[in-house]
Amino acid sequence: MKAASRRIAFQGERGAFSEEAARRLLGPHVDVLPCLRFEDLFVSVKEGRAAGAVVPIENTLAGSVHENYDHLVTYELPIVAETSVRIVHNLIALKGVKFSQVRRAFSHPVALNQCLDFFAHNPRIERTPFYDTAGSVKMLTEERLTDAAAIASLVAAETYGARVLRRSIESDRQNFTRFFLLRTPEYARRHRVRADAHTIWKTSLVFSTRNTPGALFRALSAFALRDLNLTKIESRPLRGKPWEYLFYVDFLGRADSPNARNALRHLEELADFLRVLGCYPKGA
Amino acid sequence: MKAASRRIAFQGERGAFSEEAARRLLGPHVDVLPCLRFEDLFVSVKEGRAAGAVVPIENTLAGSVHENYDHLVTYELPIVAETSVRIVHNLIALKGVKFSQVRRAFSHPVALNQCLDFFAHNPRIERTPFYDTAGSVKMLTEERLTDAAAIASLVAAETYGARVLRRSIESDRQNFTRFFLLRTPEYARRHRVRADAHTIWKTSLVFSTRNTPGALFRALSAFALRDLNLTKIESRPLRGKPWEYLFYVDFLGRADSPNARNALRHLEELADFLRVLGCYPKGA
Repeated sequence: MKAASRRIAFQGERGAFSEEAARRLLGPHVDVLPCLRFEDLFVSVKEGRAAGAVVPIENTLAGSVHENYDHLVTYELPIVAETSVRIVHNLIALKGVKFSQVRRAFSHPVALNQCLDFFAHNPRIERTPFYDTAGSVKMLTEERLTDAAAIASLVAAETYGARVLRRSIESDRQNFTRFFLLRTPEYARRHRVRADAHTIWKTSLVFSTRNTPGALFRALSAFALRDLNLTKIESRPLRGKPWEYLFYVDFLGRADSPNARNALRHLEELADFLRVLGCYPKGA
Repeated sequence: MKAASRRIAFQGERGAFSEEAARRLLGPHVDVLPCLRFEDLFVSVKEGRAAGAVVPIENTLAGSVHENYDHLVTYELPIVAETSVRIVHNLIALKGVKFSQVRRAFSHPVALNQCLDFFAHNPRIERTPFYDTAGSVKMLTEERLTDAAAIASLVAAETYGARVLRRSIESDRQNFTRFFLLRTPEYARRHRVRADAHTIWKTSLVFSTRNTPGALFRALSAFALRDLNLTKIESRPLRGKPWEYLFYVDFLGRADSPNARNALRHLEELADFLRVLGCYPKGA
């Protein structure tokens, strides 16, 4: 077996929140493959350079990562697990740098926006957008910047031997990101997900409806009439059909339970397009 | 009357697609106020520096502009009109620069991503992200760059006296952006929208439901049972309530028609929160 075949792709630099998600899903010693762009995650699994990918799908403050919803349809990699990571932002600098020296804070724009109270209380520190949270710690340590800090995870501080100046500077503690673990269809077929009688399952699917009045309502009736509880619905534009949409739905239940199979058959009658994206144990 | 009181705020530099939307909505001589960020549009109207704002809300390829959905709830500026602009991307350079000289193309990342076929056919031209489409033309002309081009609208080329090297280089012609015209609540009350018997109306609203099975289905029944046709549904995370959502809905019809009033009263029974964001003639 090649080493590549155990590696899990994630987006960002070492120490990213996605790496934390990979550890939660696959243990602390998971072998990881950092990627620059979200699409690289899907391509690296498709091309066999990674055995799976950990993909952020939604954040409780910023909302869905819409690009990844689009890739789920394009690349057809099944979802086999999910997890949520609490996003804690920390102000991190080189060892020896004092808080009073910091004039700029580098981080991903979404992270900077989640620390607005901190910046309001510390107006001398300039928000400086960077391509990645953990990558901003890496850059600080490589460039030996002494007037700057980065905003990233504790794991990023450890990874690059940097020092945490202020812990948990995010404005809103209700900040979680949900991640999917994606595998190849072959892998998902061969490896059944471990579960017991207490496991709660989730199924994710995508569909489009004919553009007729009440179409979405009728589509959702397939679930409501069978007491299947929807936990998420997301719409994305349908390419080539302006102002028509794909709908992504998560419901509680196994895709192969009698109830869900009836619902999917019902939805198939109503939908122009329907695909199950995965069935996996509900994350903590 | 102050000059500011006629000015319409839009995001981007002069020549942006948003300026084209402003002209479609308010005529070719509309007095405009370019703003750097989307939030500035809302703030400038709230603070009386602009009489209205033209705000992009969705694109048929990239999807919703989610940030602006969030601002609609926060700033409570009513939607009084909508329009759609076909997005045509052009390769634009300084006068005298030949296509063969171009090594880099600057534009907003979304625009660069919408011209992938062009870049695939011209691998010597490097995609270079910039903060704005029209702003990239402005920068080219200010910096007198002769090895670079920008990707932007024809209006941007005219505005900055630059030359169009290649017209319509977008990969997908089904590329439209929908814009809202927002006013102050006072303005919307004093100025009735002009309409005739043939006008088709749209109503936009936002609601949240209790987090119970079938809640969204029951909420949509308020419209479906009255044959009110939904044209859009968008979900956004509810702050402070992880994994709960606000739903934004557009339907065809006047908010004050008997049918819609019944639907809104029905939805009010089911919703934790409900607000009508505007009622306006359907755009072309």
